Amino acid sequence: MRWCRFQWGQNQPTYGLVEGDQVVAVEGSPFGEHRRTFETHPLADVRLLVPVVPPVFYAAGVNFREHITEMAKIRAVDPTFPPNADVGYRANNALIADGERIVIPHDATEQVQYEGELVVVFGKPCHRVSEAEALDYVLGYTIGNDVSERSWQRDDRTLWRAKNTDTFKPMGPWIETEITEPDDLKVTIRLNGREVYTYGIGDAIFSVRHYISRMSQYMTLMPGDVLWMGTDGPTENMKDGDVVEIEVPGIGVLRNPVVRERV
Amino acid sequence: MRWCRFQWGQNQPTYGLVEGDQVVAVEGSPFGEHRRTFETHPLADVRLLVPVVPPVFYAAGVNFREHITEMAKIRAVDPTFPPNADVGYRANNALIADGERIVIPHDATEQVQYEGELVVVFGKPCHRVSEAEALDYVLGYTIGNDVSERSWQRDDRTLWRAKNTDTFKPMGPWIETEITEPDDLKVTIRLNGREVYTYGIGDAIFSVRHYISRMSQYMTLMPGDVLWMGTDGPTENMKDGDVVEIEVPGIGVLRNPVVRERV
Repeated sequence: MRWCRFQWGQNQPTYGLVEGDQVVAVEGSPFGEHRRTFETHPLADVRLLVPVVPPVFYAAGVNFREHITEMAKIRAVDPTFPPNADVGYRANNALIADGERIVIPHDATEQVQYEGELVVVFGKPCHRVSEAEALDYVLGYTIGNDVSERSWQRDDRTLWRAKNTDTFKPMGPWIETEITEPDDLKVTIRLNGREVYTYGIGDAIFSVRHYISRMSQYMTLMPGDVLWMGTDGPTENMKDGDVVEIEVPGIGVLRNPVVRERV
Repeated sequence: MRWCRFQWGQNQPTYGLVEGDQVVAVEGSPFGEHRRTFETHPLADVRLLVPVVPPVFYAAGVNFREHITEMAKIRAVDPTFPPNADVGYRANNALIADGERIVIPHDATEQVQYEGELVVVFGKPCHRVSEAEALDYVLGYTIGNDVSERSWQRDDRTLWRAKNTDTFKPMGPWIETEITEPDDLKVTIRLNGREVYTYGIGDAIFSVRHYISRMSQYMTLMPGDVLWMGTDGPTENMKDGDVVEIEVPGIGVLRNPVVRERV
Protein backbone atom coordinates (compact mmCIF):
# COMPACT_ATOMS: atom_id res chain seq x y z
CA MET A 1 0.00 0.00 0.00
CA ARG A 2 1.03 3.58 -0.59
CA TRP A 3 -0.24 5.96 2.10
CA CYS A 4 -0.30 9.64 1.23
CA ARG A 5 -1.68 12.80 2.79
CA PHE A 6 -3.38 15.14 0.37
CA GLN A 7 -5.62 18.13 -0.07
CA TRP A 8 -8.38 18.30 -2.66
CA GLY A 9 -9.19 21.92 -3.52
CA GLN A 10 -9.96 23.79 -0.30
CA ASN A 11 -10.99 20.65 1.62
CA GLN A 12 -9.36 19.58 4.87
CA PRO A 13 -6.10 17.60 4.54
CA THR A 14 -6.84 13.87 4.57
CA TYR A 15 -5.01 10.57 4.33
CA GLY A 16 -5.32 8.52 1.16
CA LEU A 17 -4.11 5.46 -0.70
CA VAL A 18 -2.28 5.89 -3.99
CA GLU A 19 -3.47 3.23 -6.46
CA GLY A 20 -1.99 3.67 -9.93
CA ASP A 21 -2.86 7.21 -11.04
CA GLN A 22 -5.72 7.56 -8.53
CA VAL A 23 -5.94 8.53 -4.85
CA VAL A 24 -8.59 6.90 -2.65
CA ALA A 25 -9.53 9.04 0.37
CA VAL A 26 -9.34 7.32 3.77
CA GLU A 27 -11.10 8.35 6.99
CA GLY A 28 -8.69 8.27 9.95
CA SER A 29 -4.98 7.66 9.62
CA PRO A 30 -2.55 4.79 9.05
CA PHE A 31 -1.50 5.19 12.70
CA GLY A 32 -4.96 4.45 14.12
CA GLU A 33 -8.41 3.34 13.07
CA HIS A 34 -9.15 4.04 9.42
CA ARG A 35 -11.71 3.24 6.77
CA ARG A 36 -11.43 3.42 2.99
CA THR A 37 -14.05 5.71 1.43
CA PHE A 38 -15.60 5.81 -2.04
CA GLU A 39 -14.02 9.23 -2.75
CA THR A 40 -11.33 9.03 -5.44
CA HIS A 41 -9.36 11.69 -7.32
CA PRO A 42 -6.77 11.60 -10.08
CA LEU A 43 -3.35 11.72 -8.38
CA ALA A 44 -2.35 14.54 -10.75
CA ASP A 45 -5.21 16.72 -9.46
CA VAL A 46 -4.57 16.60 -5.70
CA ARG A 47 -2.01 18.52 -3.71
CA LEU A 48 0.27 16.03 -1.97
CA LEU A 49 1.21 16.99 1.61
CA VAL A 50 4.04 15.74 3.79
CA PRO A 51 2.91 12.11 4.37
CA VAL A 52 3.28 12.39 8.15
CA VAL A 53 4.00 15.18 10.66
CA PRO A 54 6.17 13.26 13.13
CA PRO A 55 5.83 13.53 16.93
CA VAL A 56 9.62 13.01 16.98
CA PHE A 57 11.84 13.57 13.95
CA TYR A 58 14.96 11.40 14.25
CA ALA A 59 17.95 11.59 11.89
CA ALA A 60 20.91 9.20 11.83
CA GLY A 61 23.16 11.96 10.49
CA VAL A 62 26.58 10.60 9.50
CA ASN A 63 25.95 6.94 8.62
CA PHE A 64 27.69 6.23 5.27
CA ARG A 65 31.48 6.04 4.71
CA GLU A 66 31.70 7.77 1.32
CA HIS A 67 29.77 10.80 2.55
CA ILE A 68 31.93 11.10 5.67
CA THR A 69 35.09 10.76 3.55
CA GLU A 70 33.94 13.43 1.07
CA MET A 71 32.92 15.87 3.83
CA ALA A 72 36.29 15.34 5.57
CA LYS A 73 38.14 15.94 2.28
CA ILE A 74 36.45 19.36 1.91
CA ARG A 75 37.47 20.27 5.47
CA ALA A 76 40.98 18.83 4.88
CA VAL A 77 40.73 16.53 7.90
CA ASP A 78 40.87 12.75 8.33
CA PRO A 79 37.47 11.08 8.16
CA THR A 80 36.16 9.76 11.48
CA PHE A 81 33.44 7.15 11.44
CA PRO A 82 30.92 7.13 14.29
CA PRO A 83 31.59 4.31 16.79
CA ASN A 84 27.94 4.03 17.83
CA ALA A 85 24.47 4.54 16.37
CA ASP A 86 23.86 7.87 18.17
CA VAL A 87 20.74 9.42 16.68
CA GLY A 88 20.16 13.15 16.09
CA TYR A 89 17.09 15.27 15.43
CA ARG A 90 15.52 17.46 12.77
CA ALA A 91 12.50 19.80 13.12
CA ASN A 92 8.96 19.86 11.71
CA ASN A 93 9.00 23.56 10.77
CA ALA A 94 11.36 22.67 7.91
CA LEU A 95 9.16 19.95 6.34
CA ILE A 96 7.79 20.48 2.83
CA ALA A 97 6.00 18.04 0.52
CA ASP A 98 6.90 16.61 -2.86
CA GLY A 99 6.73 19.38 -5.46
CA GLU A 100 7.09 22.27 -3.01
CA ARG A 101 9.93 24.77 -3.27
CA ILE A 102 13.19 24.64 -1.31
CA VAL A 103 13.81 28.32 -0.49
CA ILE A 104 17.46 29.32 0.04
CA PRO A 105 17.51 32.30 2.45
CA HIS A 106 19.03 35.54 1.14
CA ASP A 107 21.95 35.32 3.60
CA ALA A 108 22.92 31.70 2.91
CA THR A 109 26.20 30.98 1.08
CA GLU A 110 26.38 29.10 -2.24
CA GLN A 111 26.93 25.91 -0.24
CA VAL A 112 23.34 24.74 0.07
CA GLN A 113 23.38 21.02 -0.72
CA TYR A 114 20.98 18.08 -1.04
CA GLU A 115 21.28 14.83 0.92
CA GLY A 116 19.04 12.08 -0.45
CA GLU A 117 17.88 9.70 2.27
CA LEU A 118 15.68 6.74 3.06
CA VAL A 119 13.07 7.55 5.73
CA VAL A 120 11.68 4.92 8.11
CA VAL A 121 8.12 5.60 9.37
CA PHE A 122 7.09 3.87 12.60
CA GLY A 123 3.63 2.33 12.92
CA LYS A 124 3.50 0.99 16.48
CA PRO A 125 4.93 1.93 19.89
CA CYS A 126 8.37 0.36 20.08
CA HIS A 127 10.41 -0.10 23.26
CA ARG A 128 13.43 -2.32 23.84
CA VAL A 129 13.16 -4.51 20.79
CA SER A 130 15.85 -6.73 19.28
CA GLU A 131 17.25 -6.25 15.79
CA ALA A 132 15.30 -9.33 14.70
CA GLU A 133 12.01 -7.74 15.84
CA ALA A 134 12.81 -4.16 14.76
CA LEU A 135 11.08 -4.11 11.36
CA ASP A 136 7.79 -5.31 12.91
CA TYR A 137 7.35 -1.75 14.22
CA VAL A 138 7.82 -0.07 10.85
CA LEU A 139 4.72 1.06 8.96
CA GLY A 140 6.68 1.75 5.79
CA TYR A 141 9.26 3.90 4.06
CA THR A 142 9.37 7.26 2.37
CA ILE A 143 12.09 9.57 1.01
CA GLY A 144 13.79 12.64 2.49
CA ASN A 145 16.11 15.39 1.30
CA ASP A 146 18.23 16.59 4.25
CA VAL A 147 19.04 20.00 2.72
CA SER A 148 22.08 21.54 4.46
CA GLU A 149 23.84 24.91 4.43
CA ARG A 150 27.45 23.80 4.85
CA SER A 151 28.95 27.04 6.22
CA TRP A 152 26.32 27.15 9.00
CA GLN A 153 26.82 23.40 9.57
CA ARG A 154 30.55 24.06 10.18
CA ASP A 155 30.33 27.28 12.18
CA ASP A 156 27.19 27.21 14.35
CA ARG A 157 27.17 25.44 17.72
CA THR A 158 24.16 23.35 16.67
CA LEU A 159 22.60 22.33 13.35
CA TRP A 160 19.57 24.58 13.83
CA ARG A 161 19.63 26.75 10.69
CA ALA A 162 22.09 24.57 8.72
CA LYS A 163 19.52 21.77 8.66
CA ASN A 164 16.22 23.20 9.90
CA THR A 165 15.66 26.48 8.07
CA ASP A 166 12.05 26.56 6.78
CA THR A 167 11.68 24.38 3.60
CA PHE A 168 14.99 22.51 4.19
CA LYS A 169 13.34 19.13 4.82
CA PRO A 170 11.43 17.84 1.78
CA MET A 171 9.75 14.49 2.60
CA GLY A 172 7.51 12.25 0.48
CA PRO A 173 5.87 11.63 -1.87
CA TRP A 174 4.12 8.87 0.15
CA ILE A 175 4.74 5.96 2.53
CA GLU A 176 5.29 2.58 0.85
CA THR A 177 4.35 -0.29 3.17
CA GLU A 178 5.43 -3.25 1.05
CA ILE A 179 9.21 -3.08 1.43
CA THR A 180 10.35 -6.22 3.23
CA GLU A 181 14.13 -5.65 3.12
CA PRO A 182 15.36 -2.04 3.50
CA ASP A 183 18.99 -3.15 3.04
CA ASP A 184 18.20 -3.97 -0.60
CA LEU A 185 17.01 -0.44 -1.44
CA LYS A 186 19.02 1.93 -3.64
CA VAL A 187 18.91 5.73 -3.51
CA THR A 188 19.56 7.81 -6.65
CA ILE A 189 20.00 11.59 -6.54
CA ARG A 190 19.46 13.69 -9.69
CA LEU A 191 20.17 17.40 -10.14
CA ASN A 192 18.37 18.92 -13.14
CA GLY A 193 17.89 15.43 -14.55
CA ARG A 194 21.58 14.45 -14.28
CA GLU A 195 22.32 11.51 -11.99
CA VAL A 196 24.82 12.70 -9.37
CA TYR A 197 25.03 9.65 -7.13
CA THR A 198 23.54 6.24 -6.40
CA TYR A 199 24.13 4.26 -3.24
CA GLY A 200 22.76 1.24 -1.43
CA ILE A 201 21.14 1.29 2.01
CA GLY A 202 22.98 -1.98 2.65
CA ASP A 203 26.21 0.07 2.81
CA ALA A 204 25.09 2.00 5.91
CA ILE A 205 27.50 1.86 8.86
CA PHE A 206 24.52 1.10 11.10
CA SER A 207 21.50 -0.64 9.56
CA VAL A 208 17.83 0.27 9.93
CA ARG A 209 17.40 -2.75 12.24
CA HIS A 210 20.37 -1.74 14.38
CA TYR A 211 19.28 1.89 14.75
CA ILE A 212 15.75 0.92 15.75
CA SER A 213 16.91 -1.65 18.29
CA ARG A 214 19.53 0.69 19.77
CA MET A 215 17.24 3.75 19.98
CA SER A 216 14.46 1.69 21.53
CA GLN A 217 16.65 0.72 24.49
CA TYR A 218 16.23 4.29 25.83
CA MET A 219 13.29 5.77 23.98
CA THR A 220 9.79 4.66 23.15
CA LEU A 221 9.40 5.15 19.40
CA MET A 222 5.82 6.14 18.59
CA PRO A 223 3.47 5.76 15.61
CA GLY A 224 4.26 8.53 13.13
CA ASP A 225 7.83 9.06 14.35
CA VAL A 226 10.31 9.08 11.48
CA LEU A 227 13.98 8.09 11.24
CA TRP A 228 16.05 9.56 8.39
CA MET A 229 18.90 7.16 7.63
CA GLY A 230 21.62 9.56 6.39
CA THR A 231 23.14 9.90 2.93
CA ASP A 232 26.18 8.61 1.07
CA GLY A 233 28.62 10.12 -1.42
CA PRO A 234 29.67 13.66 -2.28
CA THR A 235 27.00 16.36 -2.48
CA GLU A 236 26.79 19.41 -4.75
CA ASN A 237 25.50 22.95 -4.38
CA MET A 238 21.94 23.69 -5.47
CA LYS A 239 21.11 27.08 -6.94
CA ASP A 240 18.11 29.15 -7.92
CA GLY A 241 16.18 27.39 -10.71
CA ASP A 242 17.55 23.89 -10.01
CA VAL A 243 15.35 20.84 -9.59
CA VAL A 244 16.49 18.06 -7.25
CA GLU A 245 15.09 14.54 -7.33
CA ILE A 246 15.65 11.68 -4.91
CA GLU A 247 14.48 8.33 -6.25
CA VAL A 248 14.18 5.08 -4.35
CA PRO A 249 12.93 2.39 -6.75
CA GLY A 250 10.08 0.56 -5.04
CA ILE A 251 9.00 3.75 -3.24
CA GLY A 252 8.95 6.62 -5.75
CA VAL A 253 10.52 9.99 -6.55
CA LEU A 254 10.74 13.06 -4.29
CA ARG A 255 11.10 16.09 -6.58
CA ASN A 256 11.57 19.70 -5.45
CA PRO A 257 12.44 22.93 -7.26
CA VAL A 258 14.96 25.29 -5.68
CA VAL A 259 14.65 29.08 -5.46
CA ARG A 260 16.84 31.68 -3.79
CA GLU A 261 15.05 34.33 -1.78
CA ARG A 262 15.26 37.86 -3.24
CA VAL A 263 15.92 40.72 -0.84
CA MET B 1 -4.65 32.72 33.27
CA ARG B 2 -3.16 29.31 34.02
CA TRP B 3 -3.70 26.80 31.20
CA CYS B 4 -3.31 23.15 32.09
CA ARG B 5 -3.98 19.83 30.40
CA PHE B 6 -5.58 17.23 32.59
CA GLN B 7 -7.37 13.93 32.76
CA TRP B 8 -10.38 13.30 34.97
CA GLY B 9 -10.71 9.59 35.75
CA GLN B 10 -10.76 7.65 32.48
CA ASN B 11 -12.02 10.62 30.41
CA GLN B 12 -10.17 11.99 27.41
CA PRO B 13 -7.35 14.45 28.13
CA THR B 14 -8.64 18.01 27.96
CA TYR B 15 -7.39 21.55 28.43
CA GLY B 16 -8.41 23.47 31.51
CA LEU B 17 -7.93 26.67 33.49
CA VAL B 18 -6.48 26.49 36.98
CA GLU B 19 -8.37 28.90 39.26
CA GLY B 20 -7.30 28.64 42.88
CA ASP B 21 -7.75 25.00 43.90
CA GLN B 22 -10.18 24.25 41.05
CA VAL B 23 -9.78 23.31 37.39
CA VAL B 24 -12.35 24.53 34.86
CA ALA B 25 -12.55 22.32 31.76
CA VAL B 26 -12.19 24.08 28.40
CA GLU B 27 -13.35 22.84 24.99
CA GLY B 28 -10.65 23.32 22.36
CA SER B 29 -7.15 24.49 23.16
CA PRO B 30 -5.27 27.69 24.01
CA PHE B 31 -3.72 27.49 20.51
CA GLY B 32 -7.04 27.73 18.67
CA GLU B 33 -10.73 28.28 19.27
CA HIS B 34 -11.80 27.42 22.79
CA ARG B 35 -14.76 27.77 25.09
CA ARG B 36 -14.94 27.61 28.88
CA THR B 37 -17.36 24.92 30.11
CA PHE B 38 -19.29 24.54 33.37
CA GLU B 39 -17.30 21.40 34.29
CA THR B 40 -15.04 21.97 37.29
CA HIS B 41 -12.96 19.63 39.43
CA PRO B 42 -10.78 20.08 42.49
CA LEU B 43 -7.18 20.51 41.24
CA ALA B 44 -6.08 17.86 43.74
CA ASP B 45 -8.38 15.27 42.12
CA VAL B 46 -7.31 15.53 38.46
CA ARG B 47 -4.23 14.06 36.84
CA LEU B 48 -2.17 16.89 35.38
CA LEU B 49 -0.65 16.13 31.96
CA VAL B 50 2.20 17.83 30.15
CA PRO B 51 0.61 21.24 29.40
CA VAL B 52 1.48 21.05 25.69
CA VAL B 53 2.94 18.44 23.33
CA PRO B 54 5.09 20.69 21.14
CA PRO B 55 5.28 20.41 17.34
CA VAL B 56 8.92 21.51 17.75
CA PHE B 57 10.80 21.26 21.05
CA TYR B 58 13.56 23.90 21.13
CA ALA B 59 16.21 24.14 23.86
CA ALA B 60 18.73 26.95 24.26
CA GLY B 61 21.20 24.55 25.88
CA VAL B 62 24.21 26.43 27.29
CA ASN B 63 22.90 29.92 28.06
CA PHE B 64 24.08 30.86 31.59
CA ARG B 65 27.69 31.63 32.62
CA GLU B 66 27.76 29.91 36.02
CA HIS B 67 26.48 26.63 34.58
CA ILE B 68 29.03 26.72 31.75
CA THR B 69 31.80 27.50 34.25
CA GLU B 70 30.78 24.66 36.58
CA MET B 71 30.51 22.13 33.73
CA ALA B 72 33.95 23.20 32.43
CA LYS B 73 35.44 22.83 35.94
CA ILE B 74 34.26 19.18 36.10
CA ARG B 75 35.83 18.49 32.71
CA ALA B 76 38.99 20.41 33.71
CA VAL B 77 38.76 22.69 30.66
CA ASP B 78 38.38 26.45 30.23
CA PRO B 79 34.77 27.57 29.96
CA THR B 80 33.70 28.72 26.51
CA PHE B 81 30.64 30.90 26.19
CA PRO B 82 28.51 30.57 23.05
CA PRO B 83 29.07 33.48 20.63
CA ASN B 84 25.57 33.22 19.13
CA ALA B 85 22.07 32.15 20.14
CA ASP B 86 22.22 28.81 18.31
CA VAL B 87 19.22 26.77 19.42
CA GLY B 88 19.14 22.99 19.96
CA TYR B 89 16.37 20.42 20.26
CA ARG B 90 14.84 17.98 22.71
CA ALA B 91 12.28 15.21 22.02
CA ASN B 92 8.66 14.59 22.97
CA ASN B 93 9.14 10.93 23.94
CA ALA B 94 10.95 12.15 27.07
CA LEU B 95 8.18 14.48 28.32
CA ILE B 96 6.48 13.71 31.64
CA ALA B 97 4.05 15.81 33.67
CA ASP B 98 4.31 17.34 37.12
CA GLY B 99 4.23 14.53 39.70
CA GLU B 100 5.34 11.77 37.35
CA ARG B 101 8.46 9.71 37.99
CA ILE B 102 11.88 10.36 36.46
CA VAL B 103 13.16 6.84 35.76
CA ILE B 104 16.95 6.42 35.69
CA PRO B 105 17.78 3.51 33.35
CA HIS B 106 19.61 0.53 34.85
CA ASP B 107 22.75 1.22 32.78
CA ALA B 108 23.04 4.95 33.57
CA THR B 109 25.91 6.13 35.79
CA GLU B 110 25.38 8.00 39.09
CA GLN B 111 25.67 11.26 37.15
CA VAL B 112 22.00 11.85 36.37
CA GLN B 113 21.37 15.53 37.13
CA TYR B 114 18.53 18.06 37.13
CA GLU B 115 18.58 21.34 35.19
CA GLY B 116 15.79 23.69 36.23
CA GLU B 117 14.63 25.90 33.36
CA LEU B 118 12.11 28.49 32.27
CA VAL B 119 10.02 27.31 29.30
CA VAL B 120 8.56 29.73 26.74
CA VAL B 121 5.33 28.52 25.04
CA PHE B 122 4.47 30.10 21.69
CA GLY B 123 0.90 31.09 20.91
CA LYS B 124 1.00 32.44 17.36
CA PRO B 125 2.99 31.77 14.16
CA CYS B 126 6.14 33.85 14.41
CA HIS B 127 8.46 34.64 11.49
CA ARG B 128 11.15 37.31 11.28
CA VAL B 129 10.16 39.39 14.25
CA SER B 130 12.26 41.98 16.07
CA GLU B 131 13.27 41.70 19.72
CA ALA B 132 10.74 44.42 20.51
CA GLU B 133 7.91 42.35 18.98
CA ALA B 134 9.11 38.95 20.21
CA LEU B 135 6.98 38.59 23.36
CA ASP B 136 3.78 39.28 21.39
CA TYR B 137 4.06 35.71 20.06
CA VAL B 138 4.36 34.10 23.49
CA LEU B 139 1.25 32.48 24.98
CA GLY B 140 2.88 32.05 28.38
CA TYR B 141 5.53 30.33 30.44
CA THR B 142 5.92 26.99 32.16
CA ILE B 143 8.78 25.12 33.88
CA GLY B 144 11.10 22.36 32.65
CA ASN B 145 13.66 19.99 34.15
CA ASP B 146 16.27 19.16 31.51
CA VAL B 147 17.42 15.90 33.16
CA SER B 148 20.84 14.88 31.83
CA GLU B 149 23.08 11.81 32.12
CA ARG B 150 26.51 13.48 32.15
CA SER B 151 28.64 10.51 31.00
CA TRP B 152 26.45 10.05 27.93
CA GLN B 153 26.43 13.81 27.39
CA ARG B 154 30.24 13.74 27.26
CA ASP B 155 30.80 10.56 25.29
CA ASP B 156 27.99 10.16 22.74
CA ARG B 157 28.11 11.95 19.38
CA THR B 158 24.71 13.54 20.01
CA LEU B 159 22.61 14.27 23.10
CA TRP B 160 20.04 11.59 22.26
CA ARG B 161 20.04 9.43 25.39
CA ALA B 162 21.86 11.93 27.65
CA LYS B 163 18.90 14.30 27.35
CA ASN B 164 16.04 12.38 25.72
CA THR B 165 15.78 9.05 27.49
CA ASP B 166 12.09 8.39 28.31
CA THR B 167 10.99 10.46 31.39
CA PHE B 168 14.02 12.82 31.21
CA LYS B 169 11.95 15.92 30.35
CA PRO B 170 9.49 16.86 33.11
CA MET B 171 7.45 19.92 32.05
CA GLY B 172 4.64 21.76 33.85
CA PRO B 173 2.63 22.10 35.97
CA TRP B 174 0.76 24.58 33.71
CA ILE B 175 1.22 27.57 31.40
CA GLU B 176 1.03 30.97 33.11
CA THR B 177 -0.05 33.69 30.66
CA GLU B 178 0.28 36.76 32.88
CA ILE B 179 4.06 37.18 32.98
CA THR B 180 4.92 40.47 31.28
CA GLU B 181 8.69 40.49 31.90
CA PRO B 182 10.49 37.12 31.72
CA ASP B 183 13.82 38.77 32.61
CA ASP B 184 12.47 39.42 36.12
CA LEU B 185 11.75 35.73 36.82
CA LYS B 186 13.81 33.68 39.29
CA VAL B 187 14.30 29.91 39.18
CA THR B 188 14.87 27.92 42.39
CA ILE B 189 15.88 24.26 42.40
CA ARG B 190 15.29 22.06 45.47
CA LEU B 191 16.49 18.51 46.03
CA ASN B 192 14.60 16.70 48.79
CA GLY B 193 13.41 20.06 50.09
CA ARG B 194 16.90 21.60 50.30
CA GLU B 195 17.47 24.64 48.08
CA VAL B 196 20.44 23.86 45.83
CA TYR B 197 20.45 26.95 43.59
CA THR B 198 18.55 30.09 42.64
CA TYR B 199 19.24 32.17 39.56
CA GLY B 200 17.64 34.95 37.58
CA ILE B 201 16.49 34.68 33.95
CA GLY B 202 17.88 38.21 33.50
CA ASP B 203 21.39 36.68 33.78
CA ALA B 204 20.98 34.66 30.58
CA ILE B 205 23.69 35.20 27.97
CA PHE B 206 20.93 35.52 25.36
CA SER B 207 17.51 36.76 26.49
CA VAL B 208 14.10 35.30 25.66
CA ARG B 209 13.50 38.22 23.29
CA HIS B 210 16.85 37.71 21.55
CA TYR B 211 16.39 33.96 21.10
CA ILE B 212 12.91 34.39 19.64
CA SER B 213 13.96 37.12 17.23
CA ARG B 214 17.08 35.23 16.12
CA MET B 215 15.34 31.87 15.65
CA SER B 216 12.49 33.50 13.75
CA GLN B 217 14.86 34.82 11.07
CA TYR B 218 15.17 31.25 9.72
CA MET B 219 12.29 29.32 11.22
CA THR B 220 8.58 29.85 11.58
CA LEU B 221 7.79 29.27 15.26
CA MET B 222 4.34 27.73 15.61
CA PRO B 223 1.60 27.71 18.27
CA GLY B 224 2.48 25.08 20.85
CA ASP B 225 6.22 25.10 20.10
CA VAL B 226 8.30 25.44 23.26
CA LEU B 227 11.69 26.98 23.95
CA TRP B 228 13.59 25.82 27.06
CA MET B 229 15.92 28.61 28.14
CA GLY B 230 18.80 26.66 29.73
CA THR B 231 19.90 26.51 33.38
CA ASP B 232 22.44 28.22 35.59
CA GLY B 233 24.75 27.09 38.37
CA PRO B 234 26.21 23.75 39.41
CA THR B 235 24.00 20.66 39.29
CA GLU B 236 23.95 17.60 41.53
CA ASN B 237 23.30 13.91 41.04
CA MET B 238 19.78 12.62 41.68
CA LYS B 239 19.31 9.12 43.07
CA ASP B 240 16.56 6.62 43.68
CA GLY B 241 14.07 8.03 46.17
CA ASP B 242 14.94 11.70 45.62
CA VAL B 243 12.37 14.38 44.90
CA VAL B 244 13.36 17.32 42.70
CA GLU B 245 11.43 20.58 42.57
CA ILE B 246 11.84 23.53 40.23
CA GLU B 247 10.01 26.64 41.37
CA VAL B 248 9.46 29.82 39.41
CA PRO B 249 7.51 32.27 41.61
CA GLY B 250 4.66 33.64 39.52
CA ILE B 251 4.34 30.35 37.64
CA GLY B 252 4.41 27.48 40.15
CA VAL B 253 6.36 24.38 41.17
CA LEU B 254 7.33 21.40 39.00
CA ARG B 255 7.87 18.45 41.33
CA ASN B 256 9.01 14.96 40.30
CA PRO B 257 10.14 11.89 42.25
CA VAL B 258 13.16 9.95 41.01
CA VAL B 259 13.47 6.17 40.79
CA ARG B 260 16.23 3.96 39.45
CA GLU B 261 15.14 1.09 37.24
CA ARG B 262 15.70 -2.38 38.72
CA VAL B 263 17.07 -5.07 36.44
